[in-house]
Amino acid sequence: MSLIVVGTMAFDDIETPFGKSDRIIGGSATYVAYAASNFIDSVEQISIVGNDFPQAELDYLQSKGVSVDGVEIVKDKPSFFWAGKYHMDMNTRDTLVTDLNVLMDFNPIVPESYQGAEFLMLGNLMPKLQKSVIEQLKTRPKLIVLDTMNFWMETALDDLKEVLTMVDVLMVNDSEARQLTNEFSIVKAAKKILTMGPKYLIIKKGEHGALLFNENNVFFAPALPLEEVFDPTGAGDTFAGGFMGHLAKTKDISFENMKTAIIVGSAMASFCVEKFGTERLKEISKEDIEGRLNDFVQLVNFDIKLA
Amino acid sequence: MSLIVVGTMAFDDIETPFGKSDRIIGGSATYVAYAASNFIDSVEQISIVGNDFPQAELDYLQSKGVSVDGVEIVKDKPSFFWAGKYHMDMNTRDTLVTDLNVLMDFNPIVPESYQGAEFLMLGNLMPKLQKSVIEQLKTRPKLIVLDTMNFWMETALDDLKEVLTMVDVLMVNDSEARQLTNEFSIVKAAKKILTMGPKYLIIKKGEHGALLFNENNVFFAPALPLEEVFDPTGAGDTFAGGFMGHLAKTKDISFENMKTAIIVGSAMASFCVEKFGTERLKEISKEDIEGRLNDFVQLVNFDIKLA
Repeated sequence: MSLIVVGTMAFDDIETPFGKSDRIIGGSATYVAYAASNFIDSVEQISIVGNDFPQAELDYLQSKGVSVDGVEIVKDKPSFFWAGKYHMDMNTRDTLVTDLNVLMDFNPIVPESYQGAEFLMLGNLMPKLQKSVIEQLKTRPKLIVLDTMNFWMETALDDLKEVLTMVDVLMVNDSEARQLTNEFSIVKAAKKILTMGPKYLIIKKGEHGALLFNENNVFFAPALPLEEVFDPTGAGDTFAGGFMGHLAKTKDISFENMKTAIIVGSAMASFCVEKFGTERLKEISKEDIEGRLNDFVQLVNFDIKLA
Repeated sequence: MSLIVVGTMAFDDIETPFGKSDRIIGGSATYVAYAASNFIDSVEQISIVGNDFPQAELDYLQSKGVSVDGVEIVKDKPSFFWAGKYHMDMNTRDTLVTDLNVLMDFNPIVPESYQGAEFLMLGNLMPKLQKSVIEQLKTRPKLIVLDTMNFWMETALDDLKEVLTMVDVLMVNDSEARQLTNEFSIVKAAKKILTMGPKYLIIKKGEHGALLFNENNVFFAPALPLEEVFDPTGAGDTFAGGFMGHLAKTKDISFENMKTAIIVGSAMASFCVEKFGTERLKEISKEDIEGRLNDFVQLVNFDIKLA
């Protein structure tokens, strides 16, 4: 039930209406790993960091059961760095700095010890690199999930379309689903995407929840209404980590179980936004997670007494 | 189990990206009545129309069990008229024309035959008129629900605050909840509103669903993901009609049953937007409604298998 996670490990500098972080640890693969490690003890990370990335962070990830054998450490370059500032609505943000640094040279190599993994989470990266990881696997994982973003639709659409034919689940936000299909209606966009390769589509709508589609079904998970969203950075990756962690733990990739996995992902994301960066994710216990899952049951369960 | 509905009955002229309606029947009370009449046969309408309002429409409402004894017909003035144009996102619209006409003189009178009603739906109107209806009732209804809008927060805030102390449920959209409380966080806004009088608060978020709050609980109902939203006019009032209709039918005003009522309201609203004006609401059968309610069960029900 091991899960390979491919993505960035980075430094972020975040400003929100509630405050300013220092230079903190971020990156899509970091969030996915922290979230998933609550459910399984065999997360296998593929990423790249520079000479400035703290060994203590790598050690901490390993203490959570995350293998960092696939994390390349580049001796003469700094790690990927992103700085951004969120607007009052917390749904929009300005990117202030993007220093690719080591990411310029990223050529993910799957370590021999990762072969045979049943689950693969391809975090948002250049589509060619995502494809390269799939091609390096000697046995196709049971489930391949791909995250991407508008940037690749604009600069590498053909590559993206090619890797889409190789994955099981696509995870994008609503505006990306629209951009990929030129359809304004989310339902129409979903139908088109399901002809492009993926059998499942997850559309993330931030504070408005997430939708799961397959050919015949649709499921909706709300976001937990929170008093304060302190920092939304990493919420989407944390959602992905919870989703993959639950599926890998239960080894059940039915639509029914994906519904539960989406609720688990939403619960994990609701923790992520409560503090800066990965801080909250590092604190939570199994009891916290169970309590939060119960909040979701209360939030959406109802009784239809049809006459 | 009768339900008094107070609101407008009007003509609308609607333009959407999908087409243009003729001058069609609209008004908040019209939508509430059509939706509620699917669940109870004792809707009691209080409204005002002009000399141009078709008798056939009043007859049709009566055939659905809606009493129009409280609908004043003004002989020498035209009915309230609104014209609007929706933008591509269908969440925003421009008002092109607002001709108040008979609404200028509206002074709602509760007919003697309506006394004793257990449910009261106060559609969006001048807060003083909403208060006047409550004061005319000799027995306080079991449940009073009030809809309002930003316009009254800007022009009649004190009156609005006064009538809020007299009702059980406030129904507003998310931006109105923010405006009423000066809180950006919906959860904080809800907490404030629940200190202003209402014991329950429903926040409508259009295509993003609806939230129900009381002091200790929160419930979320999604909107049904539709291929096309053809015309959103009246969706909020139709939601209110389904909500009130279900409560009046079941005579159960517990939080648990309000959850179901919100799903019923969401189901009715999902029909409303499929065609112009009230057209779709006039076509649907009990089987259609049951089918749609089942779609909502499929859409949100999940199984948490906590280990």
